[in-house]
Amino acid sequence: MNNRYKVIAGLMAALIINGSAVAAKDEAVDKNKKYRMGVVVFEGFELLDAMGPLEMFGNVGARLEIVLVAEKAGPVASAQKVKTVADYSFEDCPELDIVLVPGGFGYTNMIRNEKAMKWLVDRAAKAELVTSVCNGSQILAAGGILDGAKATTNKAYYKMITGSAKEVDWVHEARWVDDGRIITSSGVSAGIDMSLHVIQRLFGEETATQIANMTEYEWHRDSTWDPFAKMHASQK
Amino acid sequence: MNNRYKVIAGLMAALIINGSAVAAKDEAVDKNKKYRMGVVVFEGFELLDAMGPLEMFGNVGARLEIVLVAEKAGPVASAQKVKTVADYSFEDCPELDIVLVPGGFGYTNMIRNEKAMKWLVDRAAKAELVTSVCNGSQILAAGGILDGAKATTNKAYYKMITGSAKEVDWVHEARWVDDGRIITSSGVSAGIDMSLHVIQRLFGEETATQIANMTEYEWHRDSTWDPFAKMHASQK
Repeated sequence: MNNRYKVIAGLMAALIINGSAVAAKDEAVDKNKKYRMGVVVFEGFELLDAMGPLEMFGNVGARLEIVLVAEKAGPVASAQKVKTVADYSFEDCPELDIVLVPGGFGYTNMIRNEKAMKWLVDRAAKAELVTSVCNGSQILAAGGILDGAKATTNKAYYKMITGSAKEVDWVHEARWVDDGRIITSSGVSAGIDMSLHVIQRLFGEETATQIANMTEYEWHRDSTWDPFAKMHASQK
Repeated sequence: MNNRYKVIAGLMAALIINGSAVAAKDEAVDKNKKYRMGVVVFEGFELLDAMGPLEMFGNVGARLEIVLVAEKAGPVASAQKVKTVADYSFEDCPELDIVLVPGGFGYTNMIRNEKAMKWLVDRAAKAELVTSVCNGSQILAAGGILDGAKATTNKAYYKMITGSAKEVDWVHEARWVDDGRIITSSGVSAGIDMSLHVIQRLFGEETATQIANMTEYEWHRDSTWDPFAKMHASQK
């Protein structure tokens, strides 16, 4: 059995293509600029809200450093109980070019936490891009970060979320909304499509397409594609 | 700002629907049977191979207990560097009804590890269902677990993976292959569709559909849907 393992392992070793190699093929974009993205995690975050984007961004390669940040560095449990590990606390988190805020039923652990919200408002103001998935936009809205901006959120709780944040120019039928510096997505899985859109903006279409194809993900490239807006229309 | 948080939080609190509530609505399936699923993680596992299924299975609720198992309990880094946390080591992992094996370039950390493979072969033999995502099927094949079974794997490395495991009845064009006790999926994102299929088998179609709709995931219900087989046809 051991020999069999060795043969397979040897064959595969030659073929390893990492994210950097994929990114290096793209000719359409500035190859020099590097980014650091901070993904905010909190107890009860929706697992795929963070992990879908992290799969896509995590395959970009050397031009994108990703850090996870939470109230304390260390394990953080999702709403699905599966844990991730925060690299930094709010206090020691390095500067961020991109901020990504997932949603989840644990969003109250952010919006009721004055220290966390103060950190988020400060970092969002300094970042080049502020992004959210699902009711992550509710967290941004609670900090006033979306005031005057076009934004979206998940469709199953749309009425409730948007009804409590009147200063935002909410868009109902949208997989994601790109308002320039602020990019928000609809519920959970929509964060994957938004992430590929952001990768396309920053690193070029070829890189985004290659990541989607290698991960066998059917990328919805049209930001207005949103069957879930109709499906959950009673929540409009 | 604090009052604003409280209003939003209060409004949301009444609406929390957890996985158990979703699962309880389904009338089509045996409501009594509970399952324990073990997700095997190893250094260099592909993040979404594990986290896509964990999002879907993690929303089933009380009838499905999920544990993460690795060589040692504690943090385990994915190929995308983002960490998860294993609940159990191979030694102290409880009995498993369902085994799920993700893939990733770190698969050699499984197939070169005799202790890990012995554990996997033993647990796979005892489990009611054995599932894999992406080149997780390569790990199962290396243990002889797929001998004589119909199975699939990712399409970008199809030729290499299948060429080294001739005892398996490989299926090229398939999002996933359900061979009864063994269910294997194509690359990365395909694990989400396979998971919804397994949830449908064990917990009913209504539960699977509700989870897909709440997570705004466009579920590919047809196991033969596989544009990536054609896209990576040179690797057949």
